Amino acid sequence: MTIITTDQPVVTLINSFTVAPERQDELIRLLVEATEQVMRHRPGFVSANIHRGLEGTRVANYAQWRRREDFEAMLGDPAAQAHMREAAGIASFDPVLYEVADTVHVE
Amino acid sequence: MTIITTDQPVVTLINSFTVAPERQDELIRLLVEATEQVMRHRPGFVSANIHRGLEGTRVANYAQWRRREDFEAMLGDPAAQAHMREAAGIASFDPVLYEVADTVHVE
Repeated sequence: MTIITTDQPVVTLINSFTVAPERQDELIRLLVEATEQVMRHRPGFVSANIHRGLEGTRVANYAQWRRREDFEAMLGDPAAQAHMREAAGIASFDPVLYEVADTVHVE
Repeated sequence: MTIITTDQPVVTLINSFTVAPERQDELIRLLVEATEQVMRHRPGFVSANIHRGLEGTRVANYAQWRRREDFEAMLGDPAAQAHMREAAGIASFDPVLYEVADTVHVE
């Protein structure tokens, strides 16, 4: 499972997709397949978590990579690029790299 | 700590902020303060995780609430609204509610 804390050696990718509601399921399947077949086998991959927007037009991927360089190397991989082109054909997206700044939990 | 799995009884808010780089730290402080002072005391709050964009212009909050109704009730709270107006004064944002559809981890 994915754990979010400030003291893990990871970078976090949050990629927010916007999609027509009738293609939301298709986009989710495509992202899960791309992660299972390609991303998880690349060096530095830690985890990916595909989220379904409750209103139907959004999908998000919350993913952890060991180092920024690992994520960037994956972007250059032809198999990863093929999956990204497929996603770009049905959705717009906004990938951003983060570090965890602070966490707050209920007592 | 926050754990992401498909079998937890939570809804997930991912709120992506865009901010001038010189105000990124201020926005992060404001979000942590709002969470500590207001959100964490509202019914149904589970956790919030404030993320710093590595390029300086983005901030994201990955937050879990017990039920959608709890999150929506918080939106009507005057103290929460005051913090949200303060954030809106220095950043644009895009709050979206999700459920976790699927997770993938490295072996």
